[in-house]
Amino acid sequence: MTDGAAGGDRFAMYDLFAAYGALIDAAEFDAWLALFAATCTYHIVPRENYERGLPAGLVYCDSRAMLEDRIRTLREANKYNIHTDCHLIGLPRLTGEEGDAKLVEAPFAVYQSDQEGETRLFATGLYRDRIVVEPDDLKFRDKLVLLDTFAVPSLLATPL
Amino acid sequence: MTDGAAGGDRFAMYDLFAAYGALIDAAEFDAWLALFAATCTYHIVPRENYERGLPAGLVYCDSRAMLEDRIRTLREANKYNIHTDCHLIGLPRLTGEEGDAKLVEAPFAVYQSDQEGETRLFATGLYRDRIVVEPDDLKFRDKLVLLDTFAVPSLLATPL
Amino acid sequence: MTDGAAGGDRFAMYDLFAAYGALIDAAEFDAWLALFAATCTYHIVPRENYERGLPAGLVYCDSRAMLEDRIRTLREANKYNIHTDCHLIGLPRLTGEEGDAKLVEAPFAVYQSDQEGETRLFATGLYRDRIVVEPDDLKFRDKLVLLDTFAVPSLLATPL
Repeated sequence: MTDGAAGGDRFAMYDLFAAYGALIDAAEFDAWLALFAATCTYHIVPRENYERGLPAGLVYCDSRAMLEDRIRTLREANKYNIHTDCHLIGLPRLTGEEGDAKLVEAPFAVYQSDQEGETRLFATGLYRDRIVVEPDDLKFRDKLVLLDTFAVPSLLATPL
Repeated sequence: MTDGAAGGDRFAMYDLFAAYGALIDAAEFDAWLALFAATCTYHIVPRENYERGLPAGLVYCDSRAMLEDRIRTLREANKYNIHTDCHLIGLPRLTGEEGDAKLVEAPFAVYQSDQEGETRLFATGLYRDRIVVEPDDLKFRDKLVLLDTFAVPSLLATPL
Repeated sequence: MTDGAAGGDRFAMYDLFAAYGALIDAAEFDAWLALFAATCTYHIVPRENYERGLPAGLVYCDSRAMLEDRIRTLREANKYNIHTDCHLIGLPRLTGEEGDAKLVEAPFAVYQSDQEGETRLFATGLYRDRIVVEPDDLKFRDKLVLLDTFAVPSLLATPL
C-alpha cells in the first residue's frame, strides 16, 4: 500500500472502500463479507463514547462468525423494512501502520430511500480500520465505525 | 484503464467523474456534453424499476442529439428556477468490461441551494456507466443513472 | 503533481484534501494549519457573490496570522457549541496552473451532529484552491471556499 511503481496498492485500498459501500447498497452481503479477513472484528461505537473511553458500543462483532450472524439477522429484518441505502465514502487516508496492518480512515455518509422514493440522511461517521493483505487481496481485519449519528431508532437495521 | 505504469488510466477515470459533477455544478453544459462519446446514451431510471426489469424511465436519451436537446430545454427552464447544484460522487469502481467499454459504477448525492442560500438534499443514486476511449480521452458512452430518489416534483430540472 | 511514474504526486494531492477534512473533523487544528503554506490566504465567499464579482465575503484571512487567529477564536466559541463535524470531499480536480501553483477544485458537504446524536446537513460548496510544494509537501497557498449555503446563522462557528 505504498505509492509503488504502479500506485496499484493505493488504488486497491480505494477499491476496497468503494466495494464496501457499493456491496451494502446492492445488498450483496456475501460479497461484502468477503471484504473482511478470515479473522476480523466489526464495531459500531458512537464517536463521543469512543473519545471518552466509554465501552458502550452499538454493535460488537468480535469474530467473523458474529459478523455473519449479524448480517443474517439484518437480512431477515429488512424483509419488513424495505429501503435502499446509498453510501458516500470520502477519500481513504493512511494514518499509520501497526504490525502487518495499515491504519486507514475514511469519512462516510449513508442515505436511505424508502419505497416512495423519498431520501433522507441516515448517518454520518468515520471508518477507522486496520487493513491487511490476505492472501493477495486487501481485506478489512478490524473495522471500527465511529458514529456521529446515534439518535435514529432504526439505526441498526442496516450495515454501516 | 488498467493500473498501468503511471496509474494514469485510473486517474483519467477519476477525472472523468470529477469533471462530470463539476461541470454540471458550474453550469458549463457544453463542456459537460463533451464528456460523452459521439454515440452515446443517457438514461435516468428509478432503481426499483430497474431492478424489477420495468422499462419506466424518467429520462431516455438514446442518442447524443437527444441529450443535447434535453440540455437545451433544461437551460431554458432553469432561467426560472435559479439554483446551485452540488454533486458529490464517490470513488468510481471498475466492475467489468464489455467489448471495448469499461463498466464503471459510482454512487452520488446531489444537493441544491436556492437563492436564499438554503441547501437541501436533492437526490441520491448510482451511476452505472460504460466508458470508452475516444479518440484519446475517456468518454461516457452509456450513462445509466439509477435513482434512489424519485418523489421530488422538480426532479428533472437538473442533469443528474 | 503530474501523473508521474508513481502517481505519487496525484495521491499527495488527494491526501492533502483528505487530511484537510479529517483534521477539522478531529478538531486537530494545529495539524490542520500545517496544511497551509507559510504565506497563505483563506477566504469564504457565497458562490453567488463570487460569480457576480461582489467582494462581500464571510471570512477573509489574508495571511497565516489571520487564519491562526480565526482558529483560536473558533476554538473558544466551540466550547459552548459542542458538535461533531463530518466533511465529505469529492475527488479533487486539477483545473490549471498559475506560476508555481496548481489550481485544484473539489466539491464538499459538511454535516454537523449535536450532543444528542442528531445530524444535519450544514453546508455544501466548492473548494477552489492554489496548491504549492513547500518544502517537500503539498500545501494550500490560497483556499477559496465558494459556499452554496449561507442562510445558516451558526455558519461561521466551524472551519469549512
